[in-house]
Amino acid sequence: MGNMKINITKCLEKKEKPSTEGIAFGRNFTDHMFIADYTEGTGWHDHRIVPYQPITLDPSAVIFHYGQTVFEGLKAYKAEDGSVRLFRPEENFRRMNESCDRLCMPEIDEEEALEALKTLIELERDWVPDAEGTSLYIRPYMIATEPHLGVSPSLEYKFMIVLSPVGLYYKEGIAPVKILVENEYVRAVAGGTGAAKTAGNYAASLKAQRVAEGMGYSQVLWLDGVEKKYIEEVGSMNVFFKIDGEVVTPALNGSILGGITRKSILEMLRSWDIPVAERRISMQELVDAQRDGRLEEAFGTGTAAVISPIGEFNWKGETFSVNGGDAGELSQKLYDELTGIQTGRKEDPFGWVTVIEEKEAIRQ
Amino acid sequence: MGNMKINITKCLEKKEKPSTEGIAFGRNFTDHMFIADYTEGTGWHDHRIVPYQPITLDPSAVIFHYGQTVFEGLKAYKAEDGSVRLFRPEENFRRMNESCDRLCMPEIDEEEALEALKTLIELERDWVPDAEGTSLYIRPYMIATEPHLGVSPSLEYKFMIVLSPVGLYYKEGIAPVKILVENEYVRAVAGGTGAAKTAGNYAASLKAQRVAEGMGYSQVLWLDGVEKKYIEEVGSMNVFFKIDGEVVTPALNGSILGGITRKSILEMLRSWDIPVAERRISMQELVDAQRDGRLEEAFGTGTAAVISPIGEFNWKGETFSVNGGDAGELSQKLYDELTGIQTGRKEDPFGWVTVIEEKEAIRQ
Repeated sequence: MGNMKINITKCLEKKEKPSTEGIAFGRNFTDHMFIADYTEGTGWHDHRIVPYQPITLDPSAVIFHYGQTVFEGLKAYKAEDGSVRLFRPEENFRRMNESCDRLCMPEIDEEEALEALKTLIELERDWVPDAEGTSLYIRPYMIATEPHLGVSPSLEYKFMIVLSPVGLYYKEGIAPVKILVENEYVRAVAGGTGAAKTAGNYAASLKAQRVAEGMGYSQVLWLDGVEKKYIEEVGSMNVFFKIDGEVVTPALNGSILGGITRKSILEMLRSWDIPVAERRISMQELVDAQRDGRLEEAFGTGTAAVISPIGEFNWKGETFSVNGGDAGELSQKLYDELTGIQTGRKEDPFGWVTVIEEKEAIRQ
Repeated sequence: MGNMKINITKCLEKKEKPSTEGIAFGRNFTDHMFIADYTEGTGWHDHRIVPYQPITLDPSAVIFHYGQTVFEGLKAYKAEDGSVRLFRPEENFRRMNESCDRLCMPEIDEEEALEALKTLIELERDWVPDAEGTSLYIRPYMIATEPHLGVSPSLEYKFMIVLSPVGLYYKEGIAPVKILVENEYVRAVAGGTGAAKTAGNYAASLKAQRVAEGMGYSQVLWLDGVEKKYIEEVGSMNVFFKIDGEVVTPALNGSILGGITRKSILEMLRSWDIPVAERRISMQELVDAQRDGRLEEAFGTGTAAVISPIGEFNWKGETFSVNGGDAGELSQKLYDELTGIQTGRKEDPFGWVTVIEEKEAIRQ
């Protein structure tokens, strides 16, 4: 971005804050948002915080037709002492730039993006909820805005950050979910965009999700697009299995998103001297382990749900139970430790948390 | 849509029409556009033609984050007698509904969509250019507009049609292009969205296209995502090869877009008693045919370029020439016949053309 100066325009009237009791995920937004514009040749300019408001785009903007867009998701938490905390935000902006590279979009300045985020959150400090399980969900994203009906990278972009107070992502919370192993639809394949956080991956997933829900399952377990044998992700989460005391997760192979929760869990498990492996895992191996009683736990991981235990999976019409359908001990421990660090209830031996400095000057 | 009534609001001042001489593709738009809104439970409503203008969306609209969008592309041509003609528009709206199904988006009423398109074009009749190689490019599209940061189908949509006067899509026109066979990046895989006309497919293609252009190639030849052996598409076109007198094109396998130009060419060739085959074609087969002197012609097909002959391809660093780098006889004949039918210069034995009725009432 370069020499960023953020112009702040405050809203005249603040919205009423929703009750966090049973609040729906991603449907309420705070009073303000951050925007910066990019023009080829000029770079990023006009960094500003403005009242949350509709944006106006040409009907031929590239985003509407060719899907050139990337996004990130992270959360701010309010600790008991009133401090507001971010969890590894620098990882999100680093990954955002990796996604931008895959989508031929301009890089952001990661430090300036973090500075912009901190300023926005400080302005919206009162919006960070403090009840158990709640947080302020943060959505940085970039969209291609040039009006051009031609398949080539846009020459204009907007980088934006919006904020949404949220409760638990899945109705079930830490309660185990039932998942359907998907044999027809494919989320991503090596050489595609699966490792980038870009809209098309999510659009591609809707149909399988709808089918699974119709059959009574919460999520889809995605297999590789080549052989449909190897496990990739669950819903829009990474996936972990505890087999014979070892925690196994699919290796990042070019079609799996490198989750920040995934990375944190691997680091946490290693610090606890629990054996971990990042490698290929076939459905057959998983089913064999389940049949032999060696599959101890299974869970999805992601920013939205943090840890989502898997209580049952269905593969080709056959149903397999995990840990008697209950959340496993390790799943629960990881959830408690991770959310403990995030919310300041537990110590942060990893240095993952960034506390947002209080700046009265911004809020007045 | 059901009982469609189109409310027309005309612009107060008409834009100056650009010269069609060397006009850039997809950068100029006409005075008006069509919009209809969809609300879950209500269906399609508020069908309207309004001045071409920016659209206003919530920053959390599903399109920006999860890419739920589909589009179509077709052209209107002005014949020498002044009549304005559409080429197989009903095929586009049929395909649009197939794309909607894959993306969990609501169906449009195909007949009403065509009626809306005809009304819009009749209003913009003066915008249809008549110079050789020019046309009015038509872009129907649907975007998910509900403000919701959650991976589930939007409950609100907009269906829109914008129009753009265009010249030839590729600078090279019917002149043969050089293409690079892509071995790293993948456009689509069976089970994904490759057979739907949706934004994510195009976003995924940008990186490979940029690499190819940097090496001096106009387009990328996409191979299958599973074995990277079989030919799928070229750039955003279907691809045909004439080998030993037979015209071969990859069969629609779930990851290839079912092009309307592709379909028309197959029907035309069959009517001429030229042998055609829709089947798998490997790169090795193509290279063997080229080496044996049996590869007579190669060309891409699509609405934008109609026919784009391939004069040379590069596979794994080795360069292969097709027909001495010249446009082949059949490529030229197909281009002449197809554009002849489209523009009214030739008879239309297939009944492909819809002439738009003149309605002074709409234009006054």
